[in-house]
Amino acid sequence: MFQSSRPITSEPLVIGRSAPRVDALTKVTGEERYAADYYPENYLWAGVKRAAYPHARITGIDISQAQGMSGVVSVLTSQDVLGSNRLGIFEKDQPILADGIVRHYGEAVALVTAETKEVLEQALAAIVVEYEPLAAVFDPEEAQNKNSVILHPGRADGNTLLSGEISCGRGAAALADCAFSAEVSIELNWQDHAFLETEAGVAWLEEDGTIAMIVSTQTPFRDRLELAEALKIPPTKFRVMAPYLGGAFGGKDGITVQGFLALAALHSAGRPVKMWYSREERFLAGTKRHPAVMQYTLGCDREGVLQALDCSILLDTGAYSAMGGEVLALAMEHAGGSYCIPHTLIKGAVVYTNNPVASAFRGFGIPQAAAGIEQAVDELAKLAGFDPLQFRLKNAVRRGSVTPAGVLLTQTVGLEECLAKVGEHRLWRERQAWQNSAPPFKRRGVGLAACYHAVGFGPVIPDYANAKLELSPDGRIRVYGGVVDMGQGNAATYMQIVGHILFQGCDNMELVLPDTSRTLPSASSSASRTTFTYGNALTGAANILKERILARALLMFSFQLLEQLSVEDLILLPGRILHQPSGREVPLKMIAGFMDDSERTATYSYTCPVNKQVLPTGKNLRHHGYPHRVFSYGVQLVRLQVDTLTGEVEVCDLLNCIDAGCVLNPQVFEQQIQGGAAQGIGYALFEDFALKEGQIMTNDFSTYILPTAMDMPNMETVVVALAEDDGPYGMKGAGEISIDGVLPAIANGVADSSGTRITKGTLTGEKILLALRQAGKEAVR
Amino acid sequence: MFQSSRPITSEPLVIGRSAPRVDALTKVTGEERYAADYYPENYLWAGVKRAAYPHARITGIDISQAQGMSGVVSVLTSQDVLGSNRLGIFEKDQPILADGIVRHYGEAVALVTAETKEVLEQALAAIVVEYEPLAAVFDPEEAQNKNSVILHPGRADGNTLLSGEISCGRGAAALADCAFSAEVSIELNWQDHAFLETEAGVAWLEEDGTIAMIVSTQTPFRDRLELAEALKIPPTKFRVMAPYLGGAFGGKDGITVQGFLALAALHSAGRPVKMWYSREERFLAGTKRHPAVMQYTLGCDREGVLQALDCSILLDTGAYSAMGGEVLALAMEHAGGSYCIPHTLIKGAVVYTNNPVASAFRGFGIPQAAAGIEQAVDELAKLAGFDPLQFRLKNAVRRGSVTPAGVLLTQTVGLEECLAKVGEHRLWRERQAWQNSAPPFKRRGVGLAACYHAVGFGPVIPDYANAKLELSPDGRIRVYGGVVDMGQGNAATYMQIVGHILFQGCDNMELVLPDTSRTLPSASSSASRTTFTYGNALTGAANILKERILARALLMFSFQLLEQLSVEDLILLPGRILHQPSGREVPLKMIAGFMDDSERTATYSYTCPVNKQVLPTGKNLRHHGYPHRVFSYGVQLVRLQVDTLTGEVEVCDLLNCIDAGCVLNPQVFEQQIQGGAAQGIGYALFEDFALKEGQIMTNDFSTYILPTAMDMPNMETVVVALAEDDGPYGMKGAGEISIDGVLPAIANGVADSSGTRITKGTLTGEKILLALRQAGKEAVR
Repeated sequence: MFQSSRPITSEPLVIGRSAPRVDALTKVTGEERYAADYYPENYLWAGVKRAAYPHARITGIDISQAQGMSGVVSVLTSQDVLGSNRLGIFEKDQPILADGIVRHYGEAVALVTAETKEVLEQALAAIVVEYEPLAAVFDPEEAQNKNSVILHPGRADGNTLLSGEISCGRGAAALADCAFSAEVSIELNWQDHAFLETEAGVAWLEEDGTIAMIVSTQTPFRDRLELAEALKIPPTKFRVMAPYLGGAFGGKDGITVQGFLALAALHSAGRPVKMWYSREERFLAGTKRHPAVMQYTLGCDREGVLQALDCSILLDTGAYSAMGGEVLALAMEHAGGSYCIPHTLIKGAVVYTNNPVASAFRGFGIPQAAAGIEQAVDELAKLAGFDPLQFRLKNAVRRGSVTPAGVLLTQTVGLEECLAKVGEHRLWRERQAWQNSAPPFKRRGVGLAACYHAVGFGPVIPDYANAKLELSPDGRIRVYGGVVDMGQGNAATYMQIVGHILFQGCDNMELVLPDTSRTLPSASSSASRTTFTYGNALTGAANILKERILARALLMFSFQLLEQLSVEDLILLPGRILHQPSGREVPLKMIAGFMDDSERTATYSYTCPVNKQVLPTGKNLRHHGYPHRVFSYGVQLVRLQVDTLTGEVEVCDLLNCIDAGCVLNPQVFEQQIQGGAAQGIGYALFEDFALKEGQIMTNDFSTYILPTAMDMPNMETVVVALAEDDGPYGMKGAGEISIDGVLPAIANGVADSSGTRITKGTLTGEKILLALRQAGKEAVR
Repeated sequence: MFQSSRPITSEPLVIGRSAPRVDALTKVTGEERYAADYYPENYLWAGVKRAAYPHARITGIDISQAQGMSGVVSVLTSQDVLGSNRLGIFEKDQPILADGIVRHYGEAVALVTAETKEVLEQALAAIVVEYEPLAAVFDPEEAQNKNSVILHPGRADGNTLLSGEISCGRGAAALADCAFSAEVSIELNWQDHAFLETEAGVAWLEEDGTIAMIVSTQTPFRDRLELAEALKIPPTKFRVMAPYLGGAFGGKDGITVQGFLALAALHSAGRPVKMWYSREERFLAGTKRHPAVMQYTLGCDREGVLQALDCSILLDTGAYSAMGGEVLALAMEHAGGSYCIPHTLIKGAVVYTNNPVASAFRGFGIPQAAAGIEQAVDELAKLAGFDPLQFRLKNAVRRGSVTPAGVLLTQTVGLEECLAKVGEHRLWRERQAWQNSAPPFKRRGVGLAACYHAVGFGPVIPDYANAKLELSPDGRIRVYGGVVDMGQGNAATYMQIVGHILFQGCDNMELVLPDTSRTLPSASSSASRTTFTYGNALTGAANILKERILARALLMFSFQLLEQLSVEDLILLPGRILHQPSGREVPLKMIAGFMDDSERTATYSYTCPVNKQVLPTGKNLRHHGYPHRVFSYGVQLVRLQVDTLTGEVEVCDLLNCIDAGCVLNPQVFEQQIQGGAAQGIGYALFEDFALKEGQIMTNDFSTYILPTAMDMPNMETVVVALAEDDGPYGMKGAGEISIDGVLPAIANGVADSSGTRITKGTLTGEKILLALRQAGKEAVR
C-alpha cells in the first residue's frame, strides 16, 4: 500500500479510511498478552484426562493414586460438580466432566491441578477409569436409522438433533417441468479451526468468592450464564476477562476451558490455576466444522431461468449438540443460494454420532450450503449451455426478491454488482487466453461461486450490544470494547467510530478490552455481527457523549464571552473544543473537570431489528435463527492449474468481489476478506481431516496440513459498497462472506480444467490424479 | 458496463447502485422538450439589437422605422422598463436594456417582437442607434490604473469590483527562510460554456397578470426575485418553469433571456413570445469563464515540507459584475491548493473591463487557482528533487488540517487516499516504461494535479432547499425536483433517494420538474450542491411520508387483524405495504384514499450547516462565500504525447481519483467525472478564445474549437468514498472537482514531456511547437 510516511496516530480518525490497529505495535513487539501468556504468581497447572473409548459407560474411577502424588493439589470428577454439569446453548447436553457415559474420545473424565506440568501428566496417567464399551455410531446416515445406538436416550427424535423442511411454490414437483436439470451429491469433511493460540486461560478465586478468569473466549458474557447453571454459582460471581484472542473462528464461541478453570479454582486452596491445550488436545477436544452429506437437483427452463430445487443437507454434530441446530438452520436458509428459484424443497437434519463435536466455524453452515448449490449451478449452466457468470447474473436476487428459502430481501442486495465487477475484471475477461497458455503438464481452469451470508442472529435470540464510552478525568476518550477482538481488528474499528464522531486521534484515546466487570453485556464476536451491532451501539453512545461535552463547553464559552451562543458554533477537535466564531478553545480535560462521573460515562443499548416474516416451517427453524433480515454478498473467482503428473492444484488468482456495505476501515476489511479466502483454500485443498472410528488421525500440523503463505494465490478484493440502512455508517458484516464460496469456486475450477468434479471431501492431489487417470487425462498437456 | 438484461425500472431503487436516468428514453427518442423546443400557438419571435461599440454613450435611438414595419408587434427600449432595469446578485449593475451607456459588444440596446424571424431581423436592422464612443479598457491590469477609464463611475474602488488579501502565519516573509522556492506566472484565457442548447425560452401573460415562462435556467426561484426588482412587478406575479436543460455549466446561473421575455410578453398583445439565441449571439452575449493573470512563489524546506506561499490572482469580470466577486472569493480560498502551508499571502482582485461579461462556469474560479498552485507545486518538486506525487502526499491536507487560506477542515478529507490510489495505479507505476516507448516524433509526458473543491455557498448566502413529495391518489410517488437538472442527472438521483427510502421502483414514481408554481423554493443547480442540499431535504421529506404511510397502514391492519400491532412489523414494498408477521398486504393506493391532500404531501426544509470560522480578512470575502465547510477532493493524472512535428498534444490516458464521499448513483457519478474531464481538456488544449479590442474573434464552432469524442483519452475513474456526515447518504458534490485539475495536469505533462512549460493561455500546437523550437527540441525522437 502506497502510504504517507507521516505517523497517523495523532490524526483524528475518519470512517472510511484505514485506521491503524491499536494492537499492532504491542503485538509485533510481543508486549500484548494473550490469555495463554498469563502466568500468575504461585499458579498451578490444570489438565484433564480424556476418554479411552468413543462410546462407553464409566463403571468406576480410581483417583486415589493420583491424589496421593506429591505436587498434586486436587483431583476432581463429576462428583465435585455441584450444578447441572451441563453446557450448551439450546440443548444443554454436554457435561463438563463425564458423569456416567463418554460419547467421544475428546470427553473429559477427570480434572487435576498440580504444581508442575510434569506432575500433572503423571497424575493424569495415574487415574484409572473403568469402562463398559458401548456400540458406537460414526456415520450420520446410520445414526438416523431406527435401530442405531442412541447417544442421548429419551429424546423424541433418536439421534436427530434437529431436522426441518422448507418448501416454496410447488416444491420439488416443479422439477418435472424443467427443460434442464442437474444433480450433484457432495460430501464435505470436518475442518479444524487451527487457530494459533489453542484454548487457554487462568482463573483464581477472589476474596469475595468471585471466580475471576482471563480466558481466550468469544463470549465472555454468555460464558458466565453457562458456567452459573453448570456449577450452581450465581452468574455475578464470575468475572470473565477476554484479552485479544490468537484466533478463534467460532472455535471459542462458548465454553472450552472455562468450566475446568472455574472448577479447579474452587479446589486450589486459593491459588491461581492455568490451563492451556496442546495442539493435540485441541484437535482431540476442540470443536470442528460440521461435515456434510448433500444431494442437489436443480432445474431451469430453456432460457436458463431457474425454476426448481430439491436438496437435502445432513450434518454430523458429533457427540453433543453445541451449535448444531443453529448451523443447520443457517445452512438450510442459504441452501438454495442467492438466486430467484420459485419452487424449492430444502430438507435438512443434524444428527448425533460418536465423532468429535462440531459447532460454530466461520461460515456457520454456509460454506457447506454454498458447496452444494454452487456446484449444482455450474453443472446446470453447462448442461443448459450458458456461461456460468451470465447464468448467475440472470438468476441473481435483488432487493425485493424472495430467496429459495422464502425470505423476502428488504435490505441492500449487491449481488448483481459483484457479478458485474467479476465480469469486467481482466481475470475473467482474459481467462480463455490464460487457459490456453498453460505450461506443459498443467491444465488450467477458472471457477466461480456466488454467495450471500446472513448478518446476525436471526429473529429470536436478541442480537444486542451495550456500548460504553468515557471521557476520562484527564480529557482522554476511553472506549469500552464490549465484544471480543479475536484478531479480526474490530477493536481498531471501534476506536475509529468513536474517533470519527468525537474528532479524536488514537493518541488521545484508549481501549478497554471485554471484561464482565468493566464493559457491559454484549453478544458474541461471531455471526458477521461484531462491528455491525456493537458499532450501532457505539455510535449511539458517542453521539450522547458528544452532546454532553458540547453542552458543557457551551456553558463555559458563554461565561467567557458573555454572549448567547449556539451549540452549532462548537467544533470538537483533538483534545479540545473550538468556538469557531471567536476562535477560542477549551481543552477536553477542563470539560471533564466540570462533569460528574455519571456524565463522563455514556452508554447506549442497541438491539438489531429482525425479519418478522413468519414462514410455514414451524417454530423449530425459527428458534434456531431463520430467517434473517440483512445479508452480505460476494462472488469468488479462482484461476487455478492442475498438475497432471501429481494431481496437485495450484490456485493462481483469487478475486473476491464483496458487497458488505460501506467499508469503514479498508485495511482491516481487506485482511478479513483475504483471511477468509486463505481459510477457504485450506478447507478446499489442504486440510484433509481424517477420522477412524471416532479417533482423529490428523492430530497435528504434520498430518493436518495447513496452507502456508507459499500456497496463497495472487488475491484481489473488489468492493461493492451499497450503504445498508441498518448498519453503522452503512456497513454490513464481512467476516464470513469471503470463505463461503472458495471451496465451490475451486471445485468448479478443477471441473473446468479437466471435466472432472471431485465431490467427496478435500480436493487432494491423490483424488484428482485418480480422477484424471480414470478420465484418461493425466500427464498430458 | 457488464449488466443484466432484465429491465430494472420496476425494481425498487437502491442508493449506491446505478439508477436509470428517468429522462433517458424521452431524450434519446426526442420526446423530451427543452425550453428551446416550445412553440406555443400564435407565438411571436423576440430578439435584441446589440451594441456597436465596446464602450459608448447612447445619444439617440430611432425606432420609428422598425415600429412601422409590417409584422412587427413591439419595439422596446429602456424607456419601457418600469423598474430598476438592473440585474445582478451582489452588485445590481447590469441593465436589461442599455440606458445611457453600453459597456461591451454584447450589450442589448433594444428589444423587438415580430411575427417571423425574418421580420425580426429586418426590424432589428432598422433600429438606428446613435453613439458617442468612449475610451475603452480591455486589459485588467490597465483597468486597475488610477487614470484608467472608469466603467461604473461613483464606485469607491474604480474598476476594481472586489479585492482582498488572505494572510496566514508570517505571510510572504517566510519565503526568505525556504531552502527552495519556485516561481510561475500564469495567464489563462476565457472559456465559453458551449452548451448544446443556447439560451432560450417562451413567455406569456396569463389572465391574472402573471408572466409565465418556460426557460432554460439554473435558477428559477432566484430569477423571479431578480426580474421583480428590475421590472417592478411583484415576484409572485412570475411563474418560471425549468424543463431539462441542454447544458448550462454556470452559463444559465441567473438571468439570460428572462428579462427580455418578460418585457416582450408585457407588450405582445397577449401573445406568447419566444426567444432563442443563435450560436453567434451566445458567444457575443453569454457569460464566460474569467480569464486570469496569476503570480505564484512557493517555498519548501530541505525535506520538501511546504513552508510559504506568495500569490496573486487577477480576474477580468468584463463589463458587469455578474458573479465576479464570488468567483474571486472561491479562487482565493483555493489559491494555495489542498496542502498544509503555514505561511501564506494570497492577494486577489477582480476588475471591470469592456470585455465580455464573465461569471459562473463549472469550477467557479478553482480551475484558475489550481492552474496556478499545481504548476508551482510541480516546479518546486522538481527544483527540490522530489517525486511530484510523493511531494504532494507529504504536504497533503487531512481532516483537522488548516488550509493555506486558514480554513480549518472539520469534515472528511480524502486527498491522501486519492494520491495513494494514483500511486498504486498502473498508469502511474508503469509511466517510465510508457514514456520510454514513445513512437518516432513523439515525446511522452505524465502530469499530475491534486485539487479540492468547496461544496455549497459558504457562510452567508443560505444554501437551502425545500423538498416536496406526494403520494398521489392512485398510489404513485410523485417527486418534486426543486432543483434544475441541467443534464447532470440529479433528477434521476432524486428519484433514487426517494425510491430507496420508500422502496419503490421508477415505474411507480413520477417526477415534477422545477416550476415556481408547483415545486418549492430551492437554491440553484450549481456549486457542487445540487444533490448535496436537495438530497438532504428530500431525505427528510421521504422519511416523513414513509412514517405517515406506515402509520395509516398500521391502522388498517389493526382493524383487519384485530390485534395491537407494531409499526416495526410493516415493510414498504413496491406499490404496497406488507405486514410481515401475517403476510397481509395493502396497496399504496388504498392508503392514499385514507389520507387527505395535506397528508399525502410531505415537505421538508433544509439549510446546510456552514463554517462559522471568522477569518481576519474582514467581511468582504466572507460575504462573497469564504470560507467553506465541506470539500470534495480529487487527483488527476494524465499521460500525453506531444507531436514534435506539429506541437499537437494528444492526451492518451486520464485518471480521475475522486473523494466526493459515498457515490449514490455510480453511472451518473462517472458521467459527471468524465464530462468535467472532457471540458477540462477543451479548456487546456482546444478552446483558444480570441478577443480583439472587446470583440470576439472566435464566435462559432469553426473558430472556437471544441474537443470531440475523437480527442478523448482513455478515461478511468477511481472512487475514494469517505462518508461525509453532512451529505445525504454520505455524499459530497461531484460536479466540479473533475475539471479543476485537468489544465495543470496537462501543463505538467507537457512540461514533463519536453521540459517546456506553456504558461500563457490555451496550450495550442502552435505555442508548443514554438516553445520546442526555442528549446531546440522539435522534430526529434
